Amino acid sequence: MNELAFIKYLTKTIKPKSDIIRGIGDDAAVIDIGRMVGNRHACSLLLASDMIVEGVHFNPDTPPFRIGWKAAAVNISDIAAMGGIPKYILVSVGIDKKRGERYLRKIIQGARAVSDRFGVQIVGGDTNASPKTVVDVSITGIVEKKCAVRRDTAVAGDMVLVTGVLGAGRDNHLTFTPRVREARFLSTRFRPSAMIDVSDGFCLDLTRICEASNVGARIYPHCLPIARKARSLRDATSWGEDFELLFTLPVREARRLLTYKGRHGYPPVTLIGEVVERRQGIRFVLKNGKTEPIKPRGYVHF
Amino acid sequence: MNELAFIKYLTKTIKPKSDIIRGIGDDAAVIDIGRMVGNRHACSLLLASDMIVEGVHFNPDTPPFRIGWKAAAVNISDIAAMGGIPKYILVSVGIDKKRGERYLRKIIQGARAVSDRFGVQIVGGDTNASPKTVVDVSITGIVEKKCAVRRDTAVAGDMVLVTGVLGAGRDNHLTFTPRVREARFLSTRFRPSAMIDVSDGFCLDLTRICEASNVGARIYPHCLPIARKARSLRDATSWGEDFELLFTLPVREARRLLTYKGRHGYPPVTLIGEVVERRQGIRFVLKNGKTEPIKPRGYVHF
Repeated sequence: MNELAFIKYLTKTIKPKSDIIRGIGDDAAVIDIGRMVGNRHACSLLLASDMIVEGVHFNPDTPPFRIGWKAAAVNISDIAAMGGIPKYILVSVGIDKKRGERYLRKIIQGARAVSDRFGVQIVGGDTNASPKTVVDVSITGIVEKKCAVRRDTAVAGDMVLVTGVLGAGRDNHLTFTPRVREARFLSTRFRPSAMIDVSDGFCLDLTRICEASNVGARIYPHCLPIARKARSLRDATSWGEDFELLFTLPVREARRLLTYKGRHGYPPVTLIGEVVERRQGIRFVLKNGKTEPIKPRGYVHF
Repeated sequence: MNELAFIKYLTKTIKPKSDIIRGIGDDAAVIDIGRMVGNRHACSLLLASDMIVEGVHFNPDTPPFRIGWKAAAVNISDIAAMGGIPKYILVSVGIDKKRGERYLRKIIQGARAVSDRFGVQIVGGDTNASPKTVVDVSITGIVEKKCAVRRDTAVAGDMVLVTGVLGAGRDNHLTFTPRVREARFLSTRFRPSAMIDVSDGFCLDLTRICEASNVGARIYPHCLPIARKARSLRDATSWGEDFELLFTLPVREARRLLTYKGRHGYPPVTLIGEVVERRQGIRFVLKNGKTEPIKPRGYVHF
């Protein structure tokens, strides 16, 4: 069962209760804490976790500081993708006893370095012996109810946009900075209709938005902001670990964003296509007008 | 670095901000959500995570349903030990690809079975390839501010009590029921001065309460409720995975609890000793009046 199938299985068998605004199947679960605290205008709670494993997400010789950084950063990115503010993380580490204390400490330092940058606090954790290094971080964030951005709410007619460049993940997946500031800029001022972070490859993550929202998409491959170092378009759209924001906006808001003066200091945003009805499929539109289907190629863990 | 040392390192280097009522070093972190939601009477949020690893917490041939059960149950037990109500869990699973889909599904079913019993919802998760099975669960709970029970607040003169029996963990560590009902009964009606769940062995967890609270303890070994199947006193007090509640109560409240009529249906509670000043140490008091030090023997992961 790959992760998509796993998530489908969970979604099907576990019916969320009424305090769960959005359960399994998004970057983070959205919980209505208003009910818990007797204030229905309260923020929602965002809960997510991501595990990274030696040999899959990093190599045996990856510096432990970078492992910790990445483990925390991918989780912070999940909260960003929901339009929220990351707040607290728990860090569980499994390492081989032979790795020793310094190695463990460096992992925590890495997690702390990226957390500090966004005001995120490490509030707990767990250590275990494990033959291969494994770091599982879980994160708690908050988001104003009106600013929460899901992946299942894109609407046909919306524009598709992406921050930064695609295809740089191969080089900077251990050092990337999660797009928290950019995501908050978007969620508080432009209210994207849907958003996801590009973690497993552009094609796969675009498919996730489309499937969850029950829509199709037309993407102009010549418009895609491909990183200079990327080996090919295919590589740039399927390698993953870009951790850029892929989002959709109504036409008017997309126009407002692209001409927005206050965008100084934020990374470029590129218009790359549009959301269409589901029956039109998810397709690249080439310069000659021909189309070809976008396969959900990307990093599938199983 | 063993877990105690790891927690000390984290506690020393990471200074909690003011919204963190209790940070690293307890069964769960306690977060003041009142500030977030503009209602200072609101409940506190409890955050915890625990990872279980093949070869350490279970064997390669442990049924996957039991692995999932245990992974969720140890986390639910952490929230119980804070006097709180467990609410949401995230389940991250790493398994060998050869294990297949059914194995993964059984893990989730196990986690779900124990979660359902306490109204806990699975709100997300992650799957990965990993050479050995590893399951990391993180949990979110809530607790009324006045009912939160920490481990660093025991006071000299308090009585020491424990629920159920010690030394049964060897047999039932894969099937145990977390003491949520009992913990809530205690936290809402008796306000223990300190509480912990016996996860790594009675001697070690008692030492944790004493060190955190800066107190000592005198324990009467002949009063300890030892499981019939336990191999020896030493085994029963150091094996761990009992997941019973070890707690302290002021003398008056202890007396009230032990004679309480409404306790029908709850497991037995046994008075096993008293909290003393730190300089008196943590000691067993034998029948002949002699004492011997209690060493923090128990399951140390590194």
